[in-house]
Amino acid sequence: MSRADLPEVIVIGAGGVGVIAALSLSLAGESRVSLVVRSDYEQVREHGYEINSCDYGQLRNWRPHRFFKGVEEASESGKFFEYVVVTTKNIPDGPEGSTVPDVIRPIVESNRRLCPERQTNILLIQNGIDIEKDIYAKFDCANEKIVVLSGTQLIGSTKIGKGVIRQIGQDHILVGPFDVQNKAAVDAAQKFIDLYRCEDRNLVLFDDKVRYTRWRKLIYNSVISTTTALVGMDVSRCLKFGVAGMGTEEEIFKPGMREIFAIAASEGIELDEECISFFCDISRKQEYKPSMCIDCENGQLMELEVLLGNPLKIARENGVETPVLSLLYNMLYMVQNKLKEQKGYIKFELDDE
Amino acid sequence: MSRADLPEVIVIGAGGVGVIAALSLSLAGESRVSLVVRSDYEQVREHGYEINSCDYGQLRNWRPHRFFKGVEEASESGKFFEYVVVTTKNIPDGPEGSTVPDVIRPIVESNRRLCPERQTNILLIQNGIDIEKDIYAKFDCANEKIVVLSGTQLIGSTKIGKGVIRQIGQDHILVGPFDVQNKAAVDAAQKFIDLYRCEDRNLVLFDDKVRYTRWRKLIYNSVISTTTALVGMDVSRCLKFGVAGMGTEEEIFKPGMREIFAIAASEGIELDEECISFFCDISRKQEYKPSMCIDCENGQLMELEVLLGNPLKIARENGVETPVLSLLYNMLYMVQNKLKEQKGYIKFELDDE
Repeated sequence: MSRADLPEVIVIGAGGVGVIAALSLSLAGESRVSLVVRSDYEQVREHGYEINSCDYGQLRNWRPHRFFKGVEEASESGKFFEYVVVTTKNIPDGPEGSTVPDVIRPIVESNRRLCPERQTNILLIQNGIDIEKDIYAKFDCANEKIVVLSGTQLIGSTKIGKGVIRQIGQDHILVGPFDVQNKAAVDAAQKFIDLYRCEDRNLVLFDDKVRYTRWRKLIYNSVISTTTALVGMDVSRCLKFGVAGMGTEEEIFKPGMREIFAIAASEGIELDEECISFFCDISRKQEYKPSMCIDCENGQLMELEVLLGNPLKIARENGVETPVLSLLYNMLYMVQNKLKEQKGYIKFELDDE
Repeated sequence: MSRADLPEVIVIGAGGVGVIAALSLSLAGESRVSLVVRSDYEQVREHGYEINSCDYGQLRNWRPHRFFKGVEEASESGKFFEYVVVTTKNIPDGPEGSTVPDVIRPIVESNRRLCPERQTNILLIQNGIDIEKDIYAKFDCANEKIVVLSGTQLIGSTKIGKGVIRQIGQDHILVGPFDVQNKAAVDAAQKFIDLYRCEDRNLVLFDDKVRYTRWRKLIYNSVISTTTALVGMDVSRCLKFGVAGMGTEEEIFKPGMREIFAIAASEGIELDEECISFFCDISRKQEYKPSMCIDCENGQLMELEVLLGNPLKIARENGVETPVLSLLYNMLYMVQNKLKEQKGYIKFELDDE
């Protein structure tokens, strides 16, 4: 295949996950990679990225094939993007125009104008459950030939400065169709894996049970990430600073995790009991702050709905009791509104007498 | 009675409550009032207090009869203090030497040296339940002629600057014996009321059901104060910012309050159902932050044990279920330890592999 014939991939979201995804795709050499960069645009257009990666080594002035300042610019590029890889935070309750469907719409529409007969594959490398539903609701996927794929990253990659990325855990990603019955989605996921794989350097696997994978990751994110955000400290402090050195684990983490197990079970997904101690232990010995905690500390909105709101909707529909998760949600919902007020997205007014 | 014969009262803790207590006692004119001032000592010894009080008007350069820099200085004054009024925060898990028994000990001991046959009355104007137990445990009250009294303040008084006090709610205090069977305590409470009452200006009532009064106040403090501390915002925002504008009230405040009702009931105290809506409404229309919230924001230790830890001990002893309060406690316990680490009272170390 000549270079001009390589499929075009656009990565939206230039944080730790997005930049490493763009890098992997570029190094694999099977696609042309565009990266949408917002806040660091001037910096990286001028100097590229500085990347310190356990998989890909030390890179300076690294650039994907193209940078775009925003999705509108990308949609005017005349390119058909076969894969739209979304690595932004997923905050459906964010400010107007910031939801995933809003963000991808210009590209979906320009793709359609350019080649109405070709399929557009949306790959959501994001946490949470039911995140595909918002795409299904806002686009006529069957008629518009849109396929939605799940990406679950198990990567320790962080943007530590303007245009500077540090990746400390192997680039390990599971890619699969949200709807395993959808042959086009299965094929698209498999093709993406071929575009992404860099022999011996990253680990890219086909995910034939996306929902299970997402529930499994929620064992950590719905319970531990949320707790750290609420109390404002890293996981190891949460554990050590609990009542009698064990209250956090025994009274919050484990009961909260069991609620996730029960919700998943209510839709027929059985999680492995061993996950409980695995996830309790995974960051016990590091001063690790999950991104929800960091977002909250930095005054940024949290991924509260996809990590906790959506699981609780399912729990309510299926009659599952969730005392720990509900209380966490009620508390963090207040905090999310405080962050929204600080950002100027909402206004607080006292009720009149 | 000549002035020299007036009983000596010492107020320990020169915050909003302590200074107004010292002022009321002084104005009533039936006692000689000493005030222990720590942080503002130089300021108030030089300039006295500036007080803006809804009961007592505008005062400048106001001084009680005596200032002391600490309890040790007071204990060396040669005075027998008939009443030791404690208005400090009650933080039994604070740094060494900071508990109420530690703080009052020098005065109790100097009293005993001066007049072993006279009774020392300890009046705790502090929130929480079972706060007297710590005094009973650390002193041989019967032999040392120590009586412990309860003071419950319903006052809106705050120290708003060095030596500056603003009081916006009427000075309304309930004083009574923790042990209503103890005749000496009943008499001491009644005598204190006479020392404190300023006709038409304050409201001082005998409290013949101290435990009820304290449980009633905990309906607010165990639930609303704790929640505001955890999420870091005033009560009206907590209410408005809840899920669907009512999650805070319906899912946290009311269920938490019902747990306090159940714990109180388990020791035979029946709280009035109407308190629930009363306390939910009391600060709905003000941007009011309870002191626990302010302490947490200011990096000060919270009165967590007396407001929440002690009620939960009783719940456990009596087999009362407390899902909401326990989770609040587990969360705030972590936060309290974070504050202790910040203050340098404890050290955090990662476990070795």
